[in-house]
Amino acid sequence: MKRISSKLALKWEGLARPLFVAALFAFTVAAQDPLPSWNDSFSKSAIVQFVTEVTRQGGSSFVPDAQRIATFDNDGTLWVEQPLYTQFAFAVARVKTLAPKHAEWKEQQPFKAVLDGDMKTLAASGERGLVQLIMATHTGITTDEFQGIVSDWIGAARHPRFQRPFTECVYQPMLELMAYLRANGFKTYIVSGGGVEFMRPWAEKVYGVPREQIIGSSVKTKFEMQNGSPVLMRLPEIDFVDDGAGKPVGIQKFIGRRPIAAFGNSDGDQQMLEWTAAGPGKRLMVLIHHTDAIREYAYDHPSPVGALDKALLEAKAKSWVVVDMKKEWKRIFP
Amino acid sequence: MKRISSKLALKWEGLARPLFVAALFAFTVAAQDPLPSWNDSFSKSAIVQFVTEVTRQGGSSFVPDAQRIATFDNDGTLWVEQPLYTQFAFAVARVKTLAPKHAEWKEQQPFKAVLDGDMKTLAASGERGLVQLIMATHTGITTDEFQGIVSDWIGAARHPRFQRPFTECVYQPMLELMAYLRANGFKTYIVSGGGVEFMRPWAEKVYGVPREQIIGSSVKTKFEMQNGSPVLMRLPEIDFVDDGAGKPVGIQKFIGRRPIAAFGNSDGDQQMLEWTAAGPGKRLMVLIHHTDAIREYAYDHPSPVGALDKALLEAKAKSWVVVDMKKEWKRIFP
Repeated sequence: MKRISSKLALKWEGLARPLFVAALFAFTVAAQDPLPSWNDSFSKSAIVQFVTEVTRQGGSSFVPDAQRIATFDNDGTLWVEQPLYTQFAFAVARVKTLAPKHAEWKEQQPFKAVLDGDMKTLAASGERGLVQLIMATHTGITTDEFQGIVSDWIGAARHPRFQRPFTECVYQPMLELMAYLRANGFKTYIVSGGGVEFMRPWAEKVYGVPREQIIGSSVKTKFEMQNGSPVLMRLPEIDFVDDGAGKPVGIQKFIGRRPIAAFGNSDGDQQMLEWTAAGPGKRLMVLIHHTDAIREYAYDHPSPVGALDKALLEAKAKSWVVVDMKKEWKRIFP
Repeated sequence: MKRISSKLALKWEGLARPLFVAALFAFTVAAQDPLPSWNDSFSKSAIVQFVTEVTRQGGSSFVPDAQRIATFDNDGTLWVEQPLYTQFAFAVARVKTLAPKHAEWKEQQPFKAVLDGDMKTLAASGERGLVQLIMATHTGITTDEFQGIVSDWIGAARHPRFQRPFTECVYQPMLELMAYLRANGFKTYIVSGGGVEFMRPWAEKVYGVPREQIIGSSVKTKFEMQNGSPVLMRLPEIDFVDDGAGKPVGIQKFIGRRPIAAFGNSDGDQQMLEWTAAGPGKRLMVLIHHTDAIREYAYDHPSPVGALDKALLEAKAKSWVVVDMKKEWKRIFP
């Protein structure tokens, strides 16, 4: 700002500047599209309308801040889940690292498939296969050690098709959506079938979701003393499977409130959306439909990963929002 | 404010008022003791010094906001746990309500003790007894139904000695401490051996701790459809026991971060304090020692409820803060 007379300066300080700043701010907010990577089509309108209504003070659909809970599935909703869940890729890498100590894996599925590079057999082994791999590769170490291993791997690994870090295979429109909700007083949670401790090391930085707002599947841990220091050992025993009907269970367990908005992309998210829909007042249920084989992937069902069938039928029957990725997203990645 | 000349008014608006307000605010903050119910003795000094150090920007002990996690035991740390855990009292009331449908309880412990009013046998049945009562009285209903039952009971029940609602048998010094920590950027969590769904209906209002920051013991729940609406049924099966070595497990499971401050009162809190103490940087570990038979209760060990023995020895050996309730608290209840 150029130097001006002291009287003017006083006036500027006293009255003009605050008004100017306020006006500029209002203009900026109005002019700034909070969802620039979304085309101005049905899904975007439905989302913006929902947020506008639940945040309008005195409106009939107003929801107090504390109850503005939004839950997001992770795989296929916030980042790419094809051709294999990222955590599968991590487990595969761990199997290869640990294989020299496990001669028996050469003849034992799904380890054999991993070591043979037989991705088709591996993908077909589904969640059961993932569980076996997780038990063998994710446990027997402390929570701190596991966090270090995940951080190292995710920093170095690349998606096989997009040749970039998995943490850059996240959906730009969804990042904008989460930021938009948070700017409107929402608390955003991840509610994923994936392992909670696999997500925590990087999700805070990538999604802006703090560690304590990440809900996922888990193994049991045990508190014990190691050389006089307490550690939590990861045990080869499933504690909780946060998928399908497990998602409402996880939501109640960890949050204790029903979300008013929920976002998913597969049949594993169906019960989370049903649970969200069944509460009183305005609700937003959204399914991301992968329709873009060029920029990402096109699949619903059958698919060994992220199958979308019954949830899509229910979404259509109940007028939930179904996002057509190809038509409604201007860009996919950041 | 009296009407003054427009020139002066402009000056007031432009410069004097903000300065005045800032000065007044600083004065108020300095003059206002955030812990008025604490005597100016060792524990208060240690707490204030810890908070001052971890919040001092640029200081060697500075901790960023996101890592300012403080965990509080509930029974005996935030509210009265004598002569029986409040949840025990709730279970007792439920047993009496449900007894007409359970003739077998007349001969079966701990139900017989409840129906005979034999509080000594009941207290002696300890956690095992509580679990049996919980399975019989806390399950087989939906989460929403359970919440309604707890709310109704806690609104009407009275503490047998203090003849006031249990939610008014909370410790005023601890309410001040939680508010003080929150005002300094801490996220306060309850980490209790008690049932999480027993605490959630009232703890938000009483302690200012939101439902999603309450960690406790739990039963398994199951998502199912009831007349076309989804519900979560409470099953007669323990999901998680958030006590003793379970507390660090619960903290990692639900928060995913190690607390920098932890508050307890019994051996059931020992591992939580050890887990907190073992992290890097400044740490605050506090035990409330019940020494006031006149205003509250005097007990440590042996005690069927809230026994404090090994944790007290460790606290003394490691210079954790031990609050002498009788000497250090000006008042007990709000």
